[in-house]
Amino acid sequence: MIKTDILIIGAGPTGLFAVFEAGLLQLKCHLIDALPQAGGQCSEIYPKKPIYDIPGYPEVLAGELVDNLMEQIKPFQPGFTLGERAETIDKLEDGTFVVTTNKGTKHHAPVVAIAGGLGSFEPRKPLLDNLAKYEDNGVAYMIKEPEMYRGKKVLIAGGGDSALDWSIFLADIADEVTLVHRRNEFRGALDSVEKVQHLKNEGKINLMTPSEVVALHGENALEKVTVQNVDTSEETEVEVDHFIPLFGLSPKLGPIADWGLEIEKNAIKVDNSYDYQTNIPGIYAIGDVNTYPGKLKLILCGFHEATLMCQSAYQRIFPDKKYVMKYTTVGGVTGFDGTKKEAPKAVVKSID
Amino acid sequence: MIKTDILIIGAGPTGLFAVFEAGLLQLKCHLIDALPQAGGQCSEIYPKKPIYDIPGYPEVLAGELVDNLMEQIKPFQPGFTLGERAETIDKLEDGTFVVTTNKGTKHHAPVVAIAGGLGSFEPRKPLLDNLAKYEDNGVAYMIKEPEMYRGKKVLIAGGGDSALDWSIFLADIADEVTLVHRRNEFRGALDSVEKVQHLKNEGKINLMTPSEVVALHGENALEKVTVQNVDTSEETEVEVDHFIPLFGLSPKLGPIADWGLEIEKNAIKVDNSYDYQTNIPGIYAIGDVNTYPGKLKLILCGFHEATLMCQSAYQRIFPDKKYVMKYTTVGGVTGFDGTKKEAPKAVVKSID
Repeated sequence: MIKTDILIIGAGPTGLFAVFEAGLLQLKCHLIDALPQAGGQCSEIYPKKPIYDIPGYPEVLAGELVDNLMEQIKPFQPGFTLGERAETIDKLEDGTFVVTTNKGTKHHAPVVAIAGGLGSFEPRKPLLDNLAKYEDNGVAYMIKEPEMYRGKKVLIAGGGDSALDWSIFLADIADEVTLVHRRNEFRGALDSVEKVQHLKNEGKINLMTPSEVVALHGENALEKVTVQNVDTSEETEVEVDHFIPLFGLSPKLGPIADWGLEIEKNAIKVDNSYDYQTNIPGIYAIGDVNTYPGKLKLILCGFHEATLMCQSAYQRIFPDKKYVMKYTTVGGVTGFDGTKKEAPKAVVKSID
Repeated sequence: MIKTDILIIGAGPTGLFAVFEAGLLQLKCHLIDALPQAGGQCSEIYPKKPIYDIPGYPEVLAGELVDNLMEQIKPFQPGFTLGERAETIDKLEDGTFVVTTNKGTKHHAPVVAIAGGLGSFEPRKPLLDNLAKYEDNGVAYMIKEPEMYRGKKVLIAGGGDSALDWSIFLADIADEVTLVHRRNEFRGALDSVEKVQHLKNEGKINLMTPSEVVALHGENALEKVTVQNVDTSEETEVEVDHFIPLFGLSPKLGPIADWGLEIEKNAIKVDNSYDYQTNIPGIYAIGDVNTYPGKLKLILCGFHEATLMCQSAYQRIFPDKKYVMKYTTVGGVTGFDGTKKEAPKAVVKSID
């Protein structure tokens, strides 16, 4: 059982910044995220895209913002349960919570902060009869450890940046890379499209367009797929160890929707007049996952919500203590790892 | 009469960021600030101090933060009335406002956003009989244009960073710089203390400690001051063109306190459950100047408040339009100056 002060569900920018504000209050955080890395959409969907409305950043790449937040929260040593989805929540008699993931990992905390963004990003799956049979037996919807494809035959399907970028990346690692797309045109960064063209010309990527995977074969694990040409209906069998359809992700509120929280338009209602708490005391919702009158789904709003949530969480955890806010410019930042950042102190010195 | 969409009172970080969010909504802003430059406390009080709790910045100097905000809002060409204090407000019959400064400059806008921080920073003044007589005739409490001291005899009083830094700066410009402090010890950056020691040794700064200015003399303008040694009571007359006491600034809500706004603990009450509007429709208060249940006087909270305020201001100015938020990552930023920033577009291109 993982124990922490604030259990944060969702490791996007809002969840990450909550670690910092909690840390200033000497509260420890642990984050659960269904994605294999921290950063939420910023890392998974648009790491190379610029954001222009982060206050104080005329321009910052989404991936850079996440890197900076990770650096900012480092002194507060957050724990992470990544690649697992928060599935169930139980309220114990003492008012604390146990959250269990789809892989059975249990987390225990007096406060839960849902910072789930638009929900957990579920991959769009192809409509194939026996797809479920091969999931984790040759079929995967995201690439967690590229090394597992070394020396293997990999077939990637899709026409966007993910399909292009992973085909390029795996061309050096896998034994064979086949890229299947139902159109001749790909949609992505010019760079990536040109690189794939180049690797195809060199024979390092097999390109099959306009085509679709229409059937999967194999005794226990995946061994072969049938690819059909969309124009001619001609079918080709391709021997593969791995089939990775990269058709994008679509956000789903997921199991959280069944936690007894008040939901409105696929978002969790919170008390924005005070602390962004939900209808269940001790469970907060911050960032894009929440809703209230005038709500804007902006990262900068999530930062504010996370900050007020931490103050309220502190009161919940230590009902008898009074916290007096100290400015970081004055008091510095003292990490759980023993580090201390602070402004250079003024000297008092005579001149003679 | 200066006309604008949102008249912002206070050009600190919150007021500055409001310009950006207003700009995204195609609303123009004009800012009034009693200080001679934008940035509020960050520029005036602690430009060289690090802030650790700006989201996405593990560390940023207050002055850098202001520079970055100025860069971020540049496309939206804000107007500035600096070095003047917002004094009176009049509500016209059509519901719009006219704000007049202490120097008589008039500003007209349908929406007023008070982002006044802790108030206007009023200099602490020495207790001297005929001080008022020489104000703007030789006595000043802040240095707006250093060039006006070229070739002059300047006496600075004070023992902190401002007194040290301006003595150093003016040593190269003024004909004579005298630094008077009632103690032998100065309190400031080690660097500055050492630099003053060095300039004193070189004869470029006359140092008089432990001493105080006890009398001012001069027909119409200031001509001479009496400096008294605190230990020996010995008095010395010093010929000066300028006397600049730098005893720090203390924040005062000032004339805004008489605008009919609901005030609580020296801050303006706002509706934090929606749009940070005050009890007077059309007047908002954002950042450190406002108060509500759970309020934290943090820059990051001001950013959020500014953003929601702009949405509400838009509704007030265009009651019949429905604004649909576009993410800057998707829609880019189109400045009033004709500039356009946007993410590189994806290409759609076939591979053959």
